[in-house]
Amino acid sequence: MTTKHDILVSEVGPRDGLQSIKSIMPLPQKKAWISALAASGLREIEVGSFVPAQVLPQLADTADVVKHALTIPGLTVAVLVPNLRGAEAALRAGAHKLTIPFSASETHSLKNVRRSHAQMFDEVREIVALLRAQPPDARPKLEAGLSTAFGCTYEGEVPADKVVRLAGQLREMGCDEIGLADSVGFANPAQVRDLVVRVRAVTGKQHFAGLHLHNTRGLGLANVVAGLEVEVDTFDSSMAGIGGCPFAPGATGNIVTEDLVFMLEAMGLHTGVDLEKLLAAREILASAVPNEELYGYVPAAGLPRGANA
Amino acid sequence: MTTKHDILVSEVGPRDGLQSIKSIMPLPQKKAWISALAASGLREIEVGSFVPAQVLPQLADTADVVKHALTIPGLTVAVLVPNLRGAEAALRAGAHKLTIPFSASETHSLKNVRRSHAQMFDEVREIVALLRAQPPDARPKLEAGLSTAFGCTYEGEVPADKVVRLAGQLREMGCDEIGLADSVGFANPAQVRDLVVRVRAVTGKQHFAGLHLHNTRGLGLANVVAGLEVEVDTFDSSMAGIGGCPFAPGATGNIVTEDLVFMLEAMGLHTGVDLEKLLAAREILASAVPNEELYGYVPAAGLPRGANA
Repeated sequence: MTTKHDILVSEVGPRDGLQSIKSIMPLPQKKAWISALAASGLREIEVGSFVPAQVLPQLADTADVVKHALTIPGLTVAVLVPNLRGAEAALRAGAHKLTIPFSASETHSLKNVRRSHAQMFDEVREIVALLRAQPPDARPKLEAGLSTAFGCTYEGEVPADKVVRLAGQLREMGCDEIGLADSVGFANPAQVRDLVVRVRAVTGKQHFAGLHLHNTRGLGLANVVAGLEVEVDTFDSSMAGIGGCPFAPGATGNIVTEDLVFMLEAMGLHTGVDLEKLLAAREILASAVPNEELYGYVPAAGLPRGANA
Repeated sequence: MTTKHDILVSEVGPRDGLQSIKSIMPLPQKKAWISALAASGLREIEVGSFVPAQVLPQLADTADVVKHALTIPGLTVAVLVPNLRGAEAALRAGAHKLTIPFSASETHSLKNVRRSHAQMFDEVREIVALLRAQPPDARPKLEAGLSTAFGCTYEGEVPADKVVRLAGQLREMGCDEIGLADSVGFANPAQVRDLVVRVRAVTGKQHFAGLHLHNTRGLGLANVVAGLEVEVDTFDSSMAGIGGCPFAPGATGNIVTEDLVFMLEAMGLHTGVDLEKLLAAREILASAVPNEELYGYVPAAGLPRGANA
């Protein structure tokens, strides 16, 4: 028996969120939090990142987190991998989905992962070859997440033509899906509509991964509405809006999962997520990182009278 | 020479904002603030409310504020009037536009202005008669602002059929324009699209006043995008998001003028508002009410690199 879902909310808090805060969440709390997130109905969770522990000590236990997440029935266990080495670790850990971030702005790429576009393409090629060498039933999916797709803190405007060209190249190289990320909170609704349509024209609808939006300038959910207008059906978000890009000054916060789910459900769209259970998962986060600021309007204001949770 | 504007941003901070905070802004600061708001390019400002001073001491100087605002060339000076008595005062003061709030939820109406729908219709009838008795060139416009049009803290869901019926009745009675207000932050984008289309079908496009949205659950700008989709061209907002409905628990904040203007301009829509000058007007507000919390993402994060202010 399957339930009809209109929209996939892909939770990135355990990765994008935890990597951006000072507190290090201990492994037992991470496990409990991820279990609670999955129990609320979230079907895909980015649980960590395979980067050296000295770079991101908050995510040093990613292999153990993946191991736990794989025990949760029906959950797609996603991880971030910055390079081939990360992909090898993700493969060993058994993750279902690997996302490699690829900055459309080369300046951002050099600052963020110290690699030019040419070097990034090399990494992607090697990762694709690694994955293709696996037996089909043990082969994780590979997504290229085009970050700074809507603008860059260093370069300013990032031409749409360039983003479209990069998306086409990454797809041709063998990435299963291409996503668009507004890592630094520059996107506006008109731009979201235009760029999604143009990128999807080169990737094909089934190979378009969705939108990863930030709320830096308060336009996060407005950009979701623009995405819905052009039939985007997958949105990344982070519980309590934790996380942001460490290389983007003032870029605070992913869109808030609680507010996103509230909006989508209020609009009559089905996410499969139970809002009350989602707020229960927030309590686990709040007690595990008590010194961090948590965001979200719905958690503060409560559900409207008469709303279906 | 006229400039093409796509969207009218109607500033309600001096009324909806100031009535909801504890601080009382002195008259000289109000004048300076309103002048600065107009200087940024805002073409319509709701500058006060003609209610008894003991009810809203923050707005007791509305007649003087109107007098000042009328000296600003090109500015539409709007005021709120809860009843005939308020309308008489507004007429004496010379306001260009009167808005009478009409709660679609009768429970909210009774709590908010202590009047049933039948009593409110009587007020509207008397105000229309008063205005029609004026010479045409001295006759202000009358808007009925249908509050709780998207839901009510007391009643929960407010049926769209009821809102559409009320809008039709108010238009038939002689209100020049009918607006829809989400006074308590219940609206979602799908509902905004649907209700606007249905209400405009009975009022006619030229008699639809636009949307007054709150950001209680973080959906304010998302609802603006939905409004734009169905060609709404007028949005109320409040500088720094100050204001909310005192009778709606947890209902904090109008949508933020600064963020709204940023979004619209980023989308390529013309508001006629200069963002740098708008942020200068915010400084006047900040120093005039130093103990009040000011909201807004764009003022905190700054403009993105390469953005046209």
